[in-house]
Amino acid sequence: MVQIAIMGYGTIGSGVYDVVNTNQAIIQGNLGKELRVKYVLDLREFPGDPVESVLVHDVNVIINDPEVEIVVETMGGEHPAFEFVSSMLKAGKSVVTSNKNLVAAKGVELMKLAVEHNVNFMYEASVGGGIPIIRPLTRSVLPINDVDEITGILNGTTNYILTKMYHDGSEMASVLKEAQEKGYAERNPEADVEGYDACRKIAILGSIVTGQQIDYQSIPTEGITHVTKEDVLYAKKLGRVIRLLGTCRKVDGTYYAEVAPYMVGSNSPLFAVNGVFNGIMVHGNMLDTVMFYGQGAGSHPTASAVMSDVVDAAAHTGRIIYPGWSGDKIRLGEYDEWKHVFLLRFLGDADRKEAVEAVVGPIQVVEGCVPGEIGFITGSITNRDVAEAAKLEGFISRFRVKR
Amino acid sequence: MVQIAIMGYGTIGSGVYDVVNTNQAIIQGNLGKELRVKYVLDLREFPGDPVESVLVHDVNVIINDPEVEIVVETMGGEHPAFEFVSSMLKAGKSVVTSNKNLVAAKGVELMKLAVEHNVNFMYEASVGGGIPIIRPLTRSVLPINDVDEITGILNGTTNYILTKMYHDGSEMASVLKEAQEKGYAERNPEADVEGYDACRKIAILGSIVTGQQIDYQSIPTEGITHVTKEDVLYAKKLGRVIRLLGTCRKVDGTYYAEVAPYMVGSNSPLFAVNGVFNGIMVHGNMLDTVMFYGQGAGSHPTASAVMSDVVDAAAHTGRIIYPGWSGDKIRLGEYDEWKHVFLLRFLGDADRKEAVEAVVGPIQVVEGCVPGEIGFITGSITNRDVAEAAKLEGFISRFRVKR
Repeated sequence: MVQIAIMGYGTIGSGVYDVVNTNQAIIQGNLGKELRVKYVLDLREFPGDPVESVLVHDVNVIINDPEVEIVVETMGGEHPAFEFVSSMLKAGKSVVTSNKNLVAAKGVELMKLAVEHNVNFMYEASVGGGIPIIRPLTRSVLPINDVDEITGILNGTTNYILTKMYHDGSEMASVLKEAQEKGYAERNPEADVEGYDACRKIAILGSIVTGQQIDYQSIPTEGITHVTKEDVLYAKKLGRVIRLLGTCRKVDGTYYAEVAPYMVGSNSPLFAVNGVFNGIMVHGNMLDTVMFYGQGAGSHPTASAVMSDVVDAAAHTGRIIYPGWSGDKIRLGEYDEWKHVFLLRFLGDADRKEAVEAVVGPIQVVEGCVPGEIGFITGSITNRDVAEAAKLEGFISRFRVKR
Repeated sequence: MVQIAIMGYGTIGSGVYDVVNTNQAIIQGNLGKELRVKYVLDLREFPGDPVESVLVHDVNVIINDPEVEIVVETMGGEHPAFEFVSSMLKAGKSVVTSNKNLVAAKGVELMKLAVEHNVNFMYEASVGGGIPIIRPLTRSVLPINDVDEITGILNGTTNYILTKMYHDGSEMASVLKEAQEKGYAERNPEADVEGYDACRKIAILGSIVTGQQIDYQSIPTEGITHVTKEDVLYAKKLGRVIRLLGTCRKVDGTYYAEVAPYMVGSNSPLFAVNGVFNGIMVHGNMLDTVMFYGQGAGSHPTASAVMSDVVDAAAHTGRIIYPGWSGDKIRLGEYDEWKHVFLLRFLGDADRKEAVEAVVGPIQVVEGCVPGEIGFITGSITNRDVAEAAKLEGFISRFRVKR
């Protein structure tokens, strides 16, 4: 028998408890032995809930019980998750987490601690919710390929908002309000709409791909709060949709990482990732393009990813199987130097073309989207070039266009 | 050092040779040891090709060399691949194959043989080309989930033809001819357009999901040769696209398997899988829907999948790591009983509605697609019901509509 503990009985923790109970026979059939939740740690009481019989309030009960082999961390946040997880690893227990904040901020430290104690620190559920991504990436793609790009729609809330803005032609603020009422967005939506959530996730994916630590604080992060219904009109005119992308790319041997909204065309598999779904696109030099698609959040899907790690850990006691990355911090390319295709919006008409071309080189005109203004599609130009163009008279905004 | 041999220096075999040479440092970095191709077996000569130095014509050279630990089979076809692979397994070598015909017809036998000799028989590349599917399915999804559906666009040639028919409004025959000229379709396209290729692949995926042998001969298989430009007009009217789907589904505890063209709506992630790409959708009771997308064929992508198995095998010498399924044949549900939503086309107009409803129950009328005829969308009805409807006066055709 394998005995596990769950720390945190919130959305995901209760999902894990559910999955273990609902699919007990399947899990047991796969593992070849019974798997049981011995403890659930939470400060709250849950009167009448089936969890009551295994509920504990003191983390030391779990730390000191040698029968608990694997601990699931679904508390969220950096502290006290970090301290609790450290104690579990030191006590010789493998830890499985769904906590992107913890992995992005303290992952390297915890992986090192896990190796020192010959246990695993696993985090499939920290990115992409239920989508199998960490395991396929590290076991099927990276051992064979030079991966030069990983780009994902990593946040379901913002994708829901952007999809709805596109279909309804409405402004961000009203869609956000509706999403909050429906429970698709949090009362305090900053982590989602400002791109902070996607930033942690691309930091994790980028660190795995490069094999070195990418500090999430070093990733230029732009959310969706500035996206307007006029931007949507341009996207439609261009046959594109707007998506918030977290991306890590290698260009001429240098890695760049970023979170920002893009206009995405139908040549990209990310074009069709709508609503609350997530999609993660990987490009390898041999593999070409693959995409992993699914529910990026939600109690049961995320719990499925957590449990895939638990089962993997249970089948590999005493063996380090999970990928880590080096604590050496990677030197990312300069933001100013990174090149994109941009849509530049200006007040006025096509007469502005010459003045803009003088700064950014050849451009294409996009007419008839919004009265009183004109759009230009640039070639591949640097963020520095764009900053120069923004100084021109009549400049309204710039929007990245995914190649 | 790990030494491997490649049997068959065709499209995929030469891709494998290329991948090993191009990404040698990446593979070595991952494995922690050098990986070298000691032999390539092919009956042909390749004067001037770098493979010349390792080319052999006698399979016994490989069988009798104890230094060769892993053998890649990229010959294709059932024979002599089966005999060669059997000999390798008996000689204590793990075998990695890209050969769907071999896996669908002889997989169970070869898996058993592999286990008897404590080696692995691996087949990631036999389905979905470069897309990681077998490994994520068996290691991330199935250990946790009751999977009630796996449905895929499993053949790039037919998907290319269907995508092109949709965009150009042209007939199958002319698109096929063009695809043959461009090298996207074979001179003898039967295996693709009649669905035989997709049939092998869904037999493999279905066997993995159910854990029991699904004989490909037992899967009702309908190709795309009967798809007309009028069908495309109906699909467009319904906001759908036409896709050849291989599917294995569990309904009320009974499994059904099938290959057939469907009209697919934008609520499905398969809707956006265009051109030569493949997409495989999996639905689990906890996971909900995930999709794996990528290049379903091609030299380097498929070779990447082959090599992911090779690296996995090399890291697990003496340990059985690859999933098999039982040789017990599954009893599939009766074809006549399987339910779908159908589009029924009839000569005439909406006056026919009553007569058709008398046979298949409530239907919706689809008007204005093709002069002189009328379409009806049924509820969920059995294939038997459809066979009855087909006896009615004026019946033209029936087309499955994916829910």
